[in-house]
Amino acid sequence: MLSTTERTRLRRNKHKARSDRADLYDLLDEGVVCHLGVVVDGAPMVVPTAYGRVGDTLYLHGSTGARSLRAGGEVCVTVTLLDGLVLARSLFHHSVNHRSAMVYGVPRVVEDERERLEGLRALTEQLVPGRWEEAREPTAKELAATRVLALSLEEASVKVRTGPPTDDEEDLALPVWAGVLPVRQVFGAPEPDPGLAPGLEVPASVSGRSLFPSSLF
Amino acid sequence: MLSTTERTRLRRNKHKARSDRADLYDLLDEGVVCHLGVVVDGAPMVVPTAYGRVGDTLYLHGSTGARSLRAGGEVCVTVTLLDGLVLARSLFHHSVNHRSAMVYGVPRVVEDERERLEGLRALTEQLVPGRWEEAREPTAKELAATRVLALSLEEASVKVRTGPPTDDEEDLALPVWAGVLPVRQVFGAPEPDPGLAPGLEVPASVSGRSLFPSSLF
Repeated sequence: MLSTTERTRLRRNKHKARSDRADLYDLLDEGVVCHLGVVVDGAPMVVPTAYGRVGDTLYLHGSTGARSLRAGGEVCVTVTLLDGLVLARSLFHHSVNHRSAMVYGVPRVVEDERERLEGLRALTEQLVPGRWEEAREPTAKELAATRVLALSLEEASVKVRTGPPTDDEEDLALPVWAGVLPVRQVFGAPEPDPGLAPGLEVPASVSGRSLFPSSLF
Repeated sequence: MLSTTERTRLRRNKHKARSDRADLYDLLDEGVVCHLGVVVDGAPMVVPTAYGRVGDTLYLHGSTGARSLRAGGEVCVTVTLLDGLVLARSLFHHSVNHRSAMVYGVPRVVEDERERLEGLRALTEQLVPGRWEEAREPTAKELAATRVLALSLEEASVKVRTGPPTDDEEDLALPVWAGVLPVRQVFGAPEPDPGLAPGLEVPASVSGRSLFPSSLF
């Protein structure tokens, strides 16, 4: 079950809340980037960034110089998956089908070398499962330039909107087309690096990620 | 030209910065949702939400009760478009091709009725261009329940990463496939509302948004 703290409790549209931890995991595992919110000099800053999950821990990484990865402060990490544009008969009931997760907490700077590698592995595997074993591993110098943060998934909420528009009863007979325009994020055909050594085939990890778009609809 | 303030200046990867205002407009016009960052009780909160643009103003809306739309504080609005997974020969140089915009400022609560409608129109047209004229217009009661915020695009930055991986010279001969896996957001076939009155055709505004996915690759 997900926690219900003052800030993870949905105040409006309570029916959109999900309290099952599995919904949080599924959503996080499907996403590619999150939006990391921090407070800098009293003002919010929201940066898109990669992430990875191991159990109940979310890993973030970046340059040791990044302002968004400074230690000590509270963060809010939001992952949003877009599922459809909801086109109602009334403008008022237009909406967006989506799944979103918000995670609150104070991230911990990961110092332990084994956990740092585990976090970086999760970040890589989030992009392309299987990629960690294929590419050249990080050097000591590269690791020294990288900060890895761990954020507990303890305080998190999930919000989901699905289904057709919810028009008012008196609008149902209006001569206005209503429905949902589905939205999907799809991967295309892999584009080899121009300098790729000859004879290297696209690995199954990459070609497997490249779903044929129309199969999703 | 885009402003360069202390917080919109890119500190690292300066080559990824774009200073042309047209890049900002294009990016904002292509997106569907933004991530709105606010500070609540000293902690960041990042919520996905719809938006619309009119000239150099970004409009946001929501319930008058929404915590994220309370007036007076600084916000950061980030719009991110994902373009590809960058798979390098080294794990260290893995990256994500993307375009992102960050807009900073203190939003203004829009009180003028004409501007409120203009803002809501932009929000609707961002989802489906042409939709504003098709659906039932807002009632006075609906308008009273809706807060519209205007955020100036004065303080904004745009960051873009494109192209193949940038591996180190000494890694180029490694027997590791490298390249880009393109990512696209596509719209599928419209799904009519189950209670749709008979004889209503999908309008061109909606069917036109529904690009055949494979044409994008």
